[in-house]
Amino acid sequence: MSTPLARLYLLPVPLGPEQDPFDVLPRQTLDAFARLEYFVVENAKAARGFLKPLTAPRPLQSLQIREWPADPTPQAIDELLRPLDAGHDLGLMSDAGCPAVADPGTQMVARAHERGFQVVPMTGPSSPVLALMASGLGGQRFAFVGYVPADPAGRVETLRALEGRSAEHDETILFIETPYRNQALLESMLETLAPDTRVFVGSELSLPSQRSLAAAVEHWRSLGEAALAYAPQRRPAIFGLRASTRSAASPGPRSAQPGRSPGRVHQRRQRRRR
Amino acid sequence: MSTPLARLYLLPVPLGPEQDPFDVLPRQTLDAFARLEYFVVENAKAARGFLKPLTAPRPLQSLQIREWPADPTPQAIDELLRPLDAGHDLGLMSDAGCPAVADPGTQMVARAHERGFQVVPMTGPSSPVLALMASGLGGQRFAFVGYVPADPAGRVETLRALEGRSAEHDETILFIETPYRNQALLESMLETLAPDTRVFVGSELSLPSQRSLAAAVEHWRSLGEAALAYAPQRRPAIFGLRASTRSAASPGPRSAQPGRSPGRVHQRRQRRRR
Repeated sequence: MSTPLARLYLLPVPLGPEQDPFDVLPRQTLDAFARLEYFVVENAKAARGFLKPLTAPRPLQSLQIREWPADPTPQAIDELLRPLDAGHDLGLMSDAGCPAVADPGTQMVARAHERGFQVVPMTGPSSPVLALMASGLGGQRFAFVGYVPADPAGRVETLRALEGRSAEHDETILFIETPYRNQALLESMLETLAPDTRVFVGSELSLPSQRSLAAAVEHWRSLGEAALAYAPQRRPAIFGLRASTRSAASPGPRSAQPGRSPGRVHQRRQRRRR
Repeated sequence: MSTPLARLYLLPVPLGPEQDPFDVLPRQTLDAFARLEYFVVENAKAARGFLKPLTAPRPLQSLQIREWPADPTPQAIDELLRPLDAGHDLGLMSDAGCPAVADPGTQMVARAHERGFQVVPMTGPSSPVLALMASGLGGQRFAFVGYVPADPAGRVETLRALEGRSAEHDETILFIETPYRNQALLESMLETLAPDTRVFVGSELSLPSQRSLAAAVEHWRSLGEAALAYAPQRRPAIFGLRASTRSAASPGPRSAQPGRSPGRVHQRRQRRRR
């Protein structure tokens, strides 16, 4: 073969519709948008509005825009990859953040590898990474576990399991909730988790309105109602926790650890981690 | 207080020295570099070379550049945060990728939260996220576990544990190795993991020389020596695996699963995941 194979570009987009893509996408990513003619998107209508400034001065009608299939059978995925067969580079994007991290995009990437096409991930905003940086909870080992259960009992059970897992693997755990349940999740975290487990909440990361706090549960509790301002309803937020390995090993009741300031807990844990 | 508190900016940098920062850092991040006067860095000499074009036309001597302390005591961390006390925004950067994901940067962020300063994470390249996109292994649940052990026996034990964990939590697991052991790690993965576990290797992600492949272990094995080209020695690489939940539950010997093509394995797993 004398011609190089076509490539599948994975194109991040802003985390919210209020965000100017030119603020958060680097030149390398913007250049790909400006050059590509074939796109696979989650929602064609939303994607057209987004693509217009990024693909100008070319008219939108000159672009080939296909939607992810409702039923991503292998045949439907192969159909989406057809531009690659014809030697055309193809761009894959989702509605927010990074594509191919969930949903049919994942299967397109897996299939592209199987078929021998190179896959090119581009840089852009990712809420787990922004949260990991902003949390100060440490990212040498971390896990993102997606949505926690919406029902209160399942949520409490999951939070306890995640806290145990954080202690066992000495890792930061990140998770999300449907935005209108942000405050319910935070309240549940502050009721359920050990006083010296550190909790992070970041909302609207990458936007000018972003806000975040990381602190031990006992400090969060001392904030009272003010704590809820960090988890505004109906705004995108991401949550994190990191258990103290010591408290998780103790068999006593979790709330019975008086007399320890968050500051002293932090310092002890950080020294141990070096 | 009538003046807003100063902020700690978390500044990503390119993943390798060959990368032009203007290619992979978005305007929002570049604007922060162009505006900030106070920086905390891993290595001052390397940072000065990097900062020069990003902070021009200001002379480097006008910037306040402090190094992370060798011994990050609480006092040393507070000393680094001093510009915030005086009302100056402060930028934190590491040598490559995202800061505050490991090392003293983490403690600076934790302390800034304790002291009531807002922490602002900026967008830039992150090898775990690029790997997650490029792998097609799925990122609804994923974990990054840092370095795997260098000694062969410990490495095999860890890989088996990670494969079990991937099956148990139905999650993608990402890890790294010192670049001169890339090929030893890949060889060990292909010897140790189940034939239908999917393996991803990506090298030099975000650079023009980047290359990646995701496939079932049995497909990787069929590549012979060609497999090693995906894990070039002395180049940054990132590795991933995702176990088949079915094979991990089977008690039989791991190599005794003949007659299954990688394509069929992929398709089955993907249908199950919808």
